[in-house]
Amino acid sequence: MNLLEDTAKKNVAVNEDWYAKAQKRLDNLTKPPGSLGRLEEFARRLVAINQNAMPSLDKKVVFTFAADHGITAEGVSAYPKEVTPQMVFNFLRGGAGINVLARHAGAEVVVVDIGVDYDFENAEGLRAHKVVRGTKNFAKGPAMTREEALKCIEVGINLADEFAEKGYKLFGTGDMGIGNTTPSSAIAAVLTGRPVAEVTGKGTGISDDSLKGKIKTIESAIKLNSPDPKDALDVLAKVGGAEIGGIAGLVLGAAANRIPVVIDGFISTAGALIAYCIEPKAADYMFAAHNSVEIGHKAMLEKMGLSPILDLNLRLGEGTGAALAMTLIEAGLKIYKEMATFGEAGVSDEIIN
Amino acid sequence: MNLLEDTAKKNVAVNEDWYAKAQKRLDNLTKPPGSLGRLEEFARRLVAINQNAMPSLDKKVVFTFAADHGITAEGVSAYPKEVTPQMVFNFLRGGAGINVLARHAGAEVVVVDIGVDYDFENAEGLRAHKVVRGTKNFAKGPAMTREEALKCIEVGINLADEFAEKGYKLFGTGDMGIGNTTPSSAIAAVLTGRPVAEVTGKGTGISDDSLKGKIKTIESAIKLNSPDPKDALDVLAKVGGAEIGGIAGLVLGAAANRIPVVIDGFISTAGALIAYCIEPKAADYMFAAHNSVEIGHKAMLEKMGLSPILDLNLRLGEGTGAALAMTLIEAGLKIYKEMATFGEAGVSDEIIN
Repeated sequence: MNLLEDTAKKNVAVNEDWYAKAQKRLDNLTKPPGSLGRLEEFARRLVAINQNAMPSLDKKVVFTFAADHGITAEGVSAYPKEVTPQMVFNFLRGGAGINVLARHAGAEVVVVDIGVDYDFENAEGLRAHKVVRGTKNFAKGPAMTREEALKCIEVGINLADEFAEKGYKLFGTGDMGIGNTTPSSAIAAVLTGRPVAEVTGKGTGISDDSLKGKIKTIESAIKLNSPDPKDALDVLAKVGGAEIGGIAGLVLGAAANRIPVVIDGFISTAGALIAYCIEPKAADYMFAAHNSVEIGHKAMLEKMGLSPILDLNLRLGEGTGAALAMTLIEAGLKIYKEMATFGEAGVSDEIIN
Repeated sequence: MNLLEDTAKKNVAVNEDWYAKAQKRLDNLTKPPGSLGRLEEFARRLVAINQNAMPSLDKKVVFTFAADHGITAEGVSAYPKEVTPQMVFNFLRGGAGINVLARHAGAEVVVVDIGVDYDFENAEGLRAHKVVRGTKNFAKGPAMTREEALKCIEVGINLADEFAEKGYKLFGTGDMGIGNTTPSSAIAAVLTGRPVAEVTGKGTGISDDSLKGKIKTIESAIKLNSPDPKDALDVLAKVGGAEIGGIAGLVLGAAANRIPVVIDGFISTAGALIAYCIEPKAADYMFAAHNSVEIGHKAMLEKMGLSPILDLNLRLGEGTGAALAMTLIEAGLKIYKEMATFGEAGVSDEIIN
C-alpha cells in the first residue's frame, strides 16, 4: 500500500459522542445555552477531533506551499512569475502578510518550495521539497504527470506526519504561486460540476477583458486535457498545481493524525477539495477560515459542507485567512476551558419560561 | 454648557485626508492592492481617528455596564433578575465569557454598576456608579426620568475621559442586564422607525409564545410613553435602560477623545444608536463588532452605516463580540505597521495587465 492510500485509510470519521460530551460542559458554563454560537462549535469539534475533553492548541503552524504555473504564459495573472520566488524570500525574512498574521495568532510559518521555477540553493529556513520547476502550461497539455501529482501530495503528507510527531496541535494551509487561481478555478469547475465562468474570478486583480480570456483558457484547457472528475489525482495532475497537491496531502495527513486543519482561501480550498474527493472523511478535520472574494470559493466549500469563519473580503492567500481564523478557533477553546460553570460561579441556571 | 453638550460638540468628523495617507502605505506593502480587504479598512480608520501615521493599540479596555430592568415583571426574559448581580460577581472573579475573551484580546475589563437592583457594598474591582436601582417597568410609565437618563450618559462620558487620560487606545462596549433586549428593541423600533416585530428577538432564549408577549409589551409601552424619536434622551429615559445610557455616553466620550470604540452586539448597538442620534459624527469612531442573532441588530447598524466585522451567531453580550473583534482590528493595524514594502523586500510591484 502506498503512502497516499495508507493515509487516506487513516482518515476516520470523528466520533460524534464527543460532541455531546463537549456540549454538556458548554451548557453548564455561565451563559445562556448556545449563546456563544460558532465559538461553541469550534470547541466541540476540537474536543471530538482530539478525543480529549481538555484539548490544547499551544503549538500551531501554517504551511505556505510555493510553486509556479506554466499557465501564466497565457496571460492569466496580473503579476510576473518572478514574484513567486521574491515572495518566498519575503516569507523567509518575516515581512509578508502571513508572517505578520501568524505572529498575531501565535503560529509558526513553514515555507515549502514544492514547485517554484527558481533555484533557492540552501535558502535558510526554506523547506526544499521541489517536485517540479513550475507546472507545464496546461493550455497545451497536462500540468504534471500523475507521478508528479502524487509526489506533491506525499510532500504534504510527510510534513503533516513530521509536525504531528513534533507535537503541533493545529495546522493551517497557505499558498504562494503567481497564476494559481487559474488551476484552482479549473479544479473547482471539474470537481463541483459548475461552469468555469461561475467559479473564475480576478485573482490578484486582472481586468475585465483578461478575466474573459482566463475563463476561455480554462474552458479549452479542460476540454483538451479532459480530467476525470471521479479521479481527483487525475484532476490535480492535468489542471492543478504543485502547491495545491501539497495542500491536499497536508489535509489528508492532518486528518490521519487527528489534527484539525484550517483551510485558508480559494487555492487552499482547491487543495482541500482534492483531499475531500480522495477521502470525504477528511472534512471532519477541516475548518474553513474565510469566505474569499474569489467567486469559486463558495461552491467548493458547499461541496464539502463547510461554513467559512470570517468574511473580511480577503484575497491574498499565503495562509493569511487561516492565521486569522486560528485566533477565533482558539477563542472558542478558551471559552470552553476557562469559563466558570454555573455551580462554580453561584449563578442561577434556572430558565423561567 | 453641560457635559453631554460639551462632549457632543467635541465629536468631530474624522479627517479623510488620513485615509489616503494610510492607503498609500497599504498599497506599497508586499501584496496586491486591496487584497487584505477589511483589515486594510481597519488600519485606515485607526490612522485617521488617531491622526497618526503609526498609531498604537497597546492599552485596550472593555467596559461592561450592568443594570436591571423593571420590564422583567412582564415576563420578557428567560432568566430571573437575580442573575444580573450574580453575573457581576462572576465578572469580578474573572469567570465569565467577557473575561476569557478580553484576556484573549489582551484587553482589560472594567465592570460598572450603573443600575443594578442589588447592594454590592464595596465589591472589589467594581466601579460603583449606580444611577438607579433598576429602571421602572416601562409597561406602566417611563423607565427613568430625563435627569436619570442624562446621569447614565454622564457616567459613560466620565469613564471615557478617565481612560483616555490613562492612555487607553481602544475601547469596547459591553452590557449585563436581565431583560435588556426589551428596551433595546424598543429603542430600535423608535429610532429606526421599523415595526416592533421586525426588531424584537428571543433574547437569552424565550419561547415563541413569550416572544409574542414581548412584542405586544413593547408595542403598548411605546404607545403609553410616546417617546419622541427626534429626542434620543427622551427615548432613553422612557423606554431605555441605565446600561444603555452608560454605553451611549462611553461612545460619545470615546469620539470626543478621538478613541476608536468597538460596539458589541444588540444592546451595545442600542446605546451607540442613542449616541448617534445625539451626534451622528460619533459613527466615525465606531467599529461594529459582529452581527448578532437578535433580529433588530442589523436595522440599527444600517441606520448608522456600520458593517459588522464578525458573524459567529453570538448573542451573549457582555462585550464578548467586542473583545473578539478587537483581535481582528489589531491584526489590521499590525499588517499596516509590520509588513515589508515592495522596496524593502525586493518584490516587483509591476502589474502587467
